[in-house]
Amino acid sequence: MQVDIGNALAAVADPGVGETALDTLDDRVATAHDRIDRGMAEGEFGYAALTLPERTEADAIESAVAPLADSDAVLTVGIGGSALGAATISTALGPSDTTHRVLDNVDPEAVSETLADLPLDSTAVHVVSRSGTTAETLSNFLVVRDAMAEAGVDWTERTIVTTGEDGPLRALADEHDLPALTVPEGVPGRFSALSAVGLVPAAIQGHDIGAVLDGGQAAMESLSPSLFDCPAYAYGAIAYALDQRGASVNAMMPYAERLEPFAEWFAQLWAESLGKDGLGQTPARALGATDQHSQLQLYRAGPRDKLVTLVRETDREDRTIPETDVADLAYLGGTGLGELLDAEFEATEASLAAAGRPNVRIELDALDARGIGELLYAMEAACVLVGELYGVETFNQPAVEWGKRAARGLLGGGDFEEADAVEEKERLLIE
Amino acid sequence: MQVDIGNALAAVADPGVGETALDTLDDRVATAHDRIDRGMAEGEFGYAALTLPERTEADAIESAVAPLADSDAVLTVGIGGSALGAATISTALGPSDTTHRVLDNVDPEAVSETLADLPLDSTAVHVVSRSGTTAETLSNFLVVRDAMAEAGVDWTERTIVTTGEDGPLRALADEHDLPALTVPEGVPGRFSALSAVGLVPAAIQGHDIGAVLDGGQAAMESLSPSLFDCPAYAYGAIAYALDQRGASVNAMMPYAERLEPFAEWFAQLWAESLGKDGLGQTPARALGATDQHSQLQLYRAGPRDKLVTLVRETDREDRTIPETDVADLAYLGGTGLGELLDAEFEATEASLAAAGRPNVRIELDALDARGIGELLYAMEAACVLVGELYGVETFNQPAVEWGKRAARGLLGGGDFEEADAVEEKERLLIE
Repeated sequence: MQVDIGNALAAVADPGVGETALDTLDDRVATAHDRIDRGMAEGEFGYAALTLPERTEADAIESAVAPLADSDAVLTVGIGGSALGAATISTALGPSDTTHRVLDNVDPEAVSETLADLPLDSTAVHVVSRSGTTAETLSNFLVVRDAMAEAGVDWTERTIVTTGEDGPLRALADEHDLPALTVPEGVPGRFSALSAVGLVPAAIQGHDIGAVLDGGQAAMESLSPSLFDCPAYAYGAIAYALDQRGASVNAMMPYAERLEPFAEWFAQLWAESLGKDGLGQTPARALGATDQHSQLQLYRAGPRDKLVTLVRETDREDRTIPETDVADLAYLGGTGLGELLDAEFEATEASLAAAGRPNVRIELDALDARGIGELLYAMEAACVLVGELYGVETFNQPAVEWGKRAARGLLGGGDFEEADAVEEKERLLIE
Repeated sequence: MQVDIGNALAAVADPGVGETALDTLDDRVATAHDRIDRGMAEGEFGYAALTLPERTEADAIESAVAPLADSDAVLTVGIGGSALGAATISTALGPSDTTHRVLDNVDPEAVSETLADLPLDSTAVHVVSRSGTTAETLSNFLVVRDAMAEAGVDWTERTIVTTGEDGPLRALADEHDLPALTVPEGVPGRFSALSAVGLVPAAIQGHDIGAVLDGGQAAMESLSPSLFDCPAYAYGAIAYALDQRGASVNAMMPYAERLEPFAEWFAQLWAESLGKDGLGQTPARALGATDQHSQLQLYRAGPRDKLVTLVRETDREDRTIPETDVADLAYLGGTGLGELLDAEFEATEASLAAAGRPNVRIELDALDARGIGELLYAMEAACVLVGELYGVETFNQPAVEWGKRAARGLLGGGDFEEADAVEEKERLLIE
């Protein structure tokens, strides 16, 4: 993996980072790296996520899923960090004979459609919730279990659980002797992709999850006290410095359909880790080349408040565009769709630079198991670095608790004053 | 459709709009409405989009697609405004026996997978490009045509074209006697959902496209000189006023899986129309309740630079959550997934308000053909209003041209100085 920050320098972009500023920043990276390194060594909450590549046991996951290896489909039942990592990894690794679907919302119609689409008697259900009490996840699981029973399927034969050391899901797994894996201690959900949380579906699909971890390991080994030696820190440091200079939005724009969920995963990582104390760069999810026809006008000519992060793999199979006798299109004939995509990538990057809009290029050698492991780890390390530079609590998410209590109160799950506030809503209705 | 701007008022939120400011704004809305009304009456470029509900002939579209009505799948080949409206409408109208797929990117692998998934001999191909020369669309179409020929399918029997009055696609349609519809004159792609561009796939799927237009018509008839009488203008005016006060990001967060493409469509509408002259609110695509576990931390505790737009339908079918004997989850049993979703909607709205974060509620009576037509039209009218208030050129997208020329040059499609700039990229590589 390599990161090119040339187009984020003040010589090119406004906002941009000057060379002196970059050197000063590098000193702060060294200090932050010390802190991160210590947290990793001591297994501190959150920092412990950065040692997952050497702690996660691919064999144990593969053994746990073995009884479900013949499934025609995997259904992840989880939300947020319990779903996005799995979706990102499974999608990045490409199509499999075993479909991966995710229930990460409680839209009744969508849940019913998903269940109607799946061959329930050959679907592996992966339920993921550290607490075992996440309302959306447990509601969906109750519905799935019921649907299986109605279809005459023994859900206990088809369910694997990833949860904390105790709680309702752990108790359920014990009671029914379900295969069960553990959400690693000290690892917030959004940092758990490189654990059972993110790897179980890929393992059931037969992907090489060991190679995903190897990629993570490689990125872990590249952590170093200088941003000039470490792609992950280079990315984090430049994103931070640009945010400080006004780039309050970070548009994550991979040029690969298989990385579309990666942009979602990144958006959670960035938003939930850094969105604190009035700080935090807002992630915007984009997709190249498609969003050139949607977002690029804004990125290039709107407010100077954006960093655009362009991601691609350097090695991919192409598909030839057939020749045509239409003069206006002749230049396309004989080239490849991938060549066109690459040309658009470079054109967009140059187009942003020409307008003085900062952008960063991240390139993977290949979008394979190793590549996605490296990318996810690097973005996590980048995020932890940015948290250190901001001085925020990277690993918690206190602002979501208010709404959880309100929702629980509204549903009769206890007496919560937040639920009363819902009733007192200020209205100005236009019909 | 109704819009509730109560939580965007200064009494609740910071940034927020004071009552006096709202009255002053209302005067500007009256002036802008005059301009919009005149543009509509005179069929001026762009403004003409707002008369589509009464100009688009559902019958003509239904006749054109009649030969393809027995298709098992529809494949839209288009990008940006030529794809997002169709995806939005077809998805919003719910599952159909006729699948709708979209090729709106030139990722070789994804294109190959889509083609492998489709029953080519019973797939209707809808190619959409006003100019008939859009590189991505035409490349994909050449590939699709070739794949059909290889599969022994007569592509001329399975293709319908929507394009401008002339150009290569029009010539192709004439040559092969293909059913062909016209991208309406004076209507930019992102404003063309309520024309053949957005309605053909839904028509092939057998949805009631007349009702979609009726919904648009209802929204059109609700345009009025005062934001207090017009939901569309109320939304646009409050989004503008909040942007002026620092809410430079507009998070569009529908609580319905079937509206996920709507958020994408909105993001294009907003970004490409308003991202000009250094102005323009950045759209962020979100989805409730899922993104409560991803973005809400940032929305509630990050910078005070966001408007959150919450959208839901007030009437939907529910699915009961089975009872459970787990004490911690007992409150969920017997309630519905939809009830849970509604509780989360209201809890999130109140949670944002309690933290002084501005938000707007948009409610549809039902997410049906009429409802989606009304919603799309209202957002278009809101966008046009915001363009008037900013004083930008709402209907062009000049900033995307540079990159198009660069890409064309890189592929040998002519001599473009932009392609030379690509070669001169500033590099600072970290590996």
